[in-house]
Amino acid sequence: MRNLTMMTDLYQLTMMYGYFKYNKTEDAVFDVFFRRTGFSTSYAVVAGLEQLISYIKNITFNEKDIEYLRSLNLFDEEFLDYLKTMKFTGEIYAMKEGTVAFPAEPLIRVKAPLMEAQLIETAVLNIINHQTLIATKASRVVYSAGDDGVLEFGLRRAQGPDAGIYGARAAIIGGCVATSNVMTGQLYNVPAKGTHGHSWVMSFDSELEAFRAYASIYPTSCLLLVDTYDTLKSGMPNAITVFKELREKGYEPQGIRLDSGDLAYLSKEARKMLDKEGFESASIFASGDLDEYLIRDLKAQGAKINVWGVGTKLITSDPMPSLGGVYKLSAQEKDGKLIPKIKVSENVDKITIPGYKKIVRIYDKDAHKALADIIMLDYESIDESKPLEIFHPIETWKKMTLTNFYTKDLLVPIFIDGKQVYKSPELLDIQKYAKEDFDTFWDEYKRLLRPQEYKVDLSQKLYDLKHDLLKSIKR
Amino acid sequence: MRNLTMMTDLYQLTMMYGYFKYNKTEDAVFDVFFRRTGFSTSYAVVAGLEQLISYIKNITFNEKDIEYLRSLNLFDEEFLDYLKTMKFTGEIYAMKEGTVAFPAEPLIRVKAPLMEAQLIETAVLNIINHQTLIATKASRVVYSAGDDGVLEFGLRRAQGPDAGIYGARAAIIGGCVATSNVMTGQLYNVPAKGTHGHSWVMSFDSELEAFRAYASIYPTSCLLLVDTYDTLKSGMPNAITVFKELREKGYEPQGIRLDSGDLAYLSKEARKMLDKEGFESASIFASGDLDEYLIRDLKAQGAKINVWGVGTKLITSDPMPSLGGVYKLSAQEKDGKLIPKIKVSENVDKITIPGYKKIVRIYDKDAHKALADIIMLDYESIDESKPLEIFHPIETWKKMTLTNFYTKDLLVPIFIDGKQVYKSPELLDIQKYAKEDFDTFWDEYKRLLRPQEYKVDLSQKLYDLKHDLLKSIKR
Repeated sequence: MRNLTMMTDLYQLTMMYGYFKYNKTEDAVFDVFFRRTGFSTSYAVVAGLEQLISYIKNITFNEKDIEYLRSLNLFDEEFLDYLKTMKFTGEIYAMKEGTVAFPAEPLIRVKAPLMEAQLIETAVLNIINHQTLIATKASRVVYSAGDDGVLEFGLRRAQGPDAGIYGARAAIIGGCVATSNVMTGQLYNVPAKGTHGHSWVMSFDSELEAFRAYASIYPTSCLLLVDTYDTLKSGMPNAITVFKELREKGYEPQGIRLDSGDLAYLSKEARKMLDKEGFESASIFASGDLDEYLIRDLKAQGAKINVWGVGTKLITSDPMPSLGGVYKLSAQEKDGKLIPKIKVSENVDKITIPGYKKIVRIYDKDAHKALADIIMLDYESIDESKPLEIFHPIETWKKMTLTNFYTKDLLVPIFIDGKQVYKSPELLDIQKYAKEDFDTFWDEYKRLLRPQEYKVDLSQKLYDLKHDLLKSIKR
Repeated sequence: MRNLTMMTDLYQLTMMYGYFKYNKTEDAVFDVFFRRTGFSTSYAVVAGLEQLISYIKNITFNEKDIEYLRSLNLFDEEFLDYLKTMKFTGEIYAMKEGTVAFPAEPLIRVKAPLMEAQLIETAVLNIINHQTLIATKASRVVYSAGDDGVLEFGLRRAQGPDAGIYGARAAIIGGCVATSNVMTGQLYNVPAKGTHGHSWVMSFDSELEAFRAYASIYPTSCLLLVDTYDTLKSGMPNAITVFKELREKGYEPQGIRLDSGDLAYLSKEARKMLDKEGFESASIFASGDLDEYLIRDLKAQGAKINVWGVGTKLITSDPMPSLGGVYKLSAQEKDGKLIPKIKVSENVDKITIPGYKKIVRIYDKDAHKALADIIMLDYESIDESKPLEIFHPIETWKKMTLTNFYTKDLLVPIFIDGKQVYKSPELLDIQKYAKEDFDTFWDEYKRLLRPQEYKVDLSQKLYDLKHDLLKSIKR
């Protein structure tokens, strides 16, 4: 990823200058979290950490940047000198990519000198918000497709090059088996897939000629798009003609692709036509304005589709094109001690959780399923040998006692003292981890609409800290 | 913009290989157009041409790309050799950035050897779809704000870095007066704006202290965010205290920013408080989940807001995060002659318009307002001295005769024989052009909901060509 140091909001720089003038050089702690996903589902699949690491490592203002900032007439030379040699020297903890996360949980925890922590807010949010959004959308689409494969196809409708390239990366994390995007395939060593479009068919004098030409070039991977003129009257008969010719030459066709019309009806008819001619193993690919809801509906109606190509609505996360992750101050060092900070709001959802925190996930020892997450102060720990009472962070009378469990810390160290201490796995390994993590949740939490709410509670100490701070502010 | 040659769908390369093997080296013509905007409004503001030019100029496969493509085991060495030296050698016509366009009109017309035209489809669509989407959204937001300024604030919620950087660029084209994005400010020489956030206030022991500190650093541009604790009981009184202190030192405050709560009520109360203390010229900035509809509603309720900071919903074009522009074959050379091509569909909207075409906009000579657009074959022309009969392209009985008009060709040459013949203007000049173009349309077409439909008709010759081709396919 290219250098993104200047990809920040101007107010980060105006605030930094203020901190600089007021000599506010002590550490601050910021949490990245989302309040709700906006999807009907409440979970999110974390993604973007690899690009975040690259961004942090490359932070540096070059001579041209300094010149530009000077031209704004907002900053003095002393501050510009500081920027010239500025690097990130702090600490970052994060959830691994592919981790299933829930509202209010810090996905990223930054502890760094206030100016550094402030500078990186915008890019950190941009990267994590985007990729987490798309990985989550992909996870929903893949879940709706059951055992069928889902291909990511959306590059042409993505919101710019990065949205296509990193969106496809995130879609792979969310479970897509391949992408149409050659650059993502090259950069991340993941399968790139594609066959032909309507223009191929139109560039020949007839559909049959176009299909024959395609089959002769790709005899071992012959997948034909059958809807250019008329799916059932022209496309399918021509495809079957060519498939028979292929078989005579000793090749089996890969299948056909439907890109318009009623995919339930057409896929059932196409399946019958293929089966009747002995092409039971030929797959039916479908594409065209698909999303998790349409896939679920088509499957419910018995559509005979084996592979789903999902484009626009996946790569843009239509109709919910942003995650809404925020970056909030949760503690600030004073005289060498971390002082917890809280942001109040009339909206109870918007009151932040103070302090230097971690998240512990609790699993059932027998089922190996996640039971609840506890946000707690970093120094706290859970004794796995004893029953654990947890309670709802707002409706506090809702209590539950957990036994027979084990725990996992969700935040892992990424940068310590400005040094990278974590290496991103290969993308397909992240995908594998994401699938394993997803499998530790009961289906009730994954329902596309109105899923069961997963428990994210606060430790007693953190709950008390939050309410003490609220009381002190009200005074 | 970095090299995006590999940012294409794999099927472009598999089709190219097919064309290569079948020696299909003649020219093809492709049109980029959208069928409807998906917004309630039907117009779009064209953007992205500068990045498209940069992409086209930089097309080249490097050694690593060739190596990667070889590893896919899809292509032979002869084809890879062809790719090694491949450049774009064709012709591109396009609407200038900032032009108001309508459904079915080619925004871009590519005429190039089939393989080159096929390769660029994905990146051309990606770039033009994205920036045109955001420029259009911005245009709607700016229109809803009337004479107030609109600031683009969305970087942290954009779909990746490019969506933030080029999205902000497009937002400027759409009429935003500034962006928070420092990199876009630097790259395109447009105003970057920003003051401080909640973390500034929280990092001081009190709000008053934080405001004083800010005012002392930025006495000539003091804009204070007043909602960290309690807008009317704490933020406003503290701001006014600091504004008075500023005035004593000879400075006038810039104003305050509201970022939460009921913006109509709070802005009216804040206005009263400011006016009462003699700060009538202090502005009220507002931000927080704004879009064109909310701005219109807040204004209808008498909100006293002077400047609107619009973030998430502008930069992601929520709730319509894609434009749906397509790239369709409209003609193909055979034996040195361009043969028109049509793509049929059961959906009448999806039948393409064949041929090598242009778009002529017709203006009323007195009012200087646009009357209609005519899509016509490139060799046709309109005699401005004679009455012109136009007709609806589907409901053909709807006719109209235009007199007293002048015309403008909307497509201008960008590349001829692979050479760039057009230089992008400075971004602020594009913004100016966009505003002038927008002003040539009556308000009826700009309504946020259910606007009047602008006439986009076909010339008689083009209409006949389309219907002759349709008939010949049905035979």
